[in-house]
Amino acid sequence: MTTRRKSARPAAPKGDLLLRGRIWIESSAGGMALTDAGVDLLEQIDALGSLSEAARRLHFSYRRAWMLIDAMNHRFAAPLVTTAVGGKRGGGTRVTELGRLVIRTYRDVQVRLEHLLGEESAAFRRINRSTS
Amino acid sequence: MTTRRKSARPAAPKGDLLLRGRIWIESSAGGMALTDAGVDLLEQIDALGSLSEAARRLHFSYRRAWMLIDAMNHRFAAPLVTTAVGGKRGGGTRVTELGRLVIRTYRDVQVRLEHLLGEESAAFRRINRSTS
Repeated sequence: MTTRRKSARPAAPKGDLLLRGRIWIESSAGGMALTDAGVDLLEQIDALGSLSEAARRLHFSYRRAWMLIDAMNHRFAAPLVTTAVGGKRGGGTRVTELGRLVIRTYRDVQVRLEHLLGEESAAFRRINRSTS
Repeated sequence: MTTRRKSARPAAPKGDLLLRGRIWIESSAGGMALTDAGVDLLEQIDALGSLSEAARRLHFSYRRAWMLIDAMNHRFAAPLVTTAVGGKRGGGTRVTELGRLVIRTYRDVQVRLEHLLGEESAAFRRINRSTS
């Protein structure tokens, strides 16, 4: 009796392989401290000076934006975003110095990650071609 | 009139910050080609020679395990796993040479990612302490 080996499904048009990745920051006390969405929001607040305008620009609900800010302010040692109360122009939301440092560091890590993924994507494509 | 700035919530016990990340492989033709769960499964199949035993060991349903294998076999250029049909012992699932190369490369990328995350976690903790 012979043994035949086959794959579960016949060959189909194959796409290219893409190695992807993402990062985030958790608090050891539990919960997410920062995600890609949070950093996008920080950048927009820094550019626009307004939480509601930043949320609108990113198509986030105000509630979602507020919760992202609340989580990061709560989980970092000091707030990343502060809100002005009172004053002639009222409202106004700004990113703190810590917030700006966090944005810069997070973006740096993303650049390093993209570099790593680019290199290793090539490795996967190479071995994928070598054995097809 | 004075302007007062405050954060959305008063200070609470802060945990340490942990930078986390994960990787996966997509097909440019659409769909997931490989995830952490898929690599765990490949390793268990390689060790046990059986899809159902590998699934049991990882507490995956047989259906989930089968779908992971089907997706990777379908999206890589050649199968990562083959199933023997017939023969005295019947069944039997094995990881191909390509499958082994994929496991090794994926684990290498994870090691590089963990190294990056470790370094940059330290950076986040440093700036977090410096401004608290």
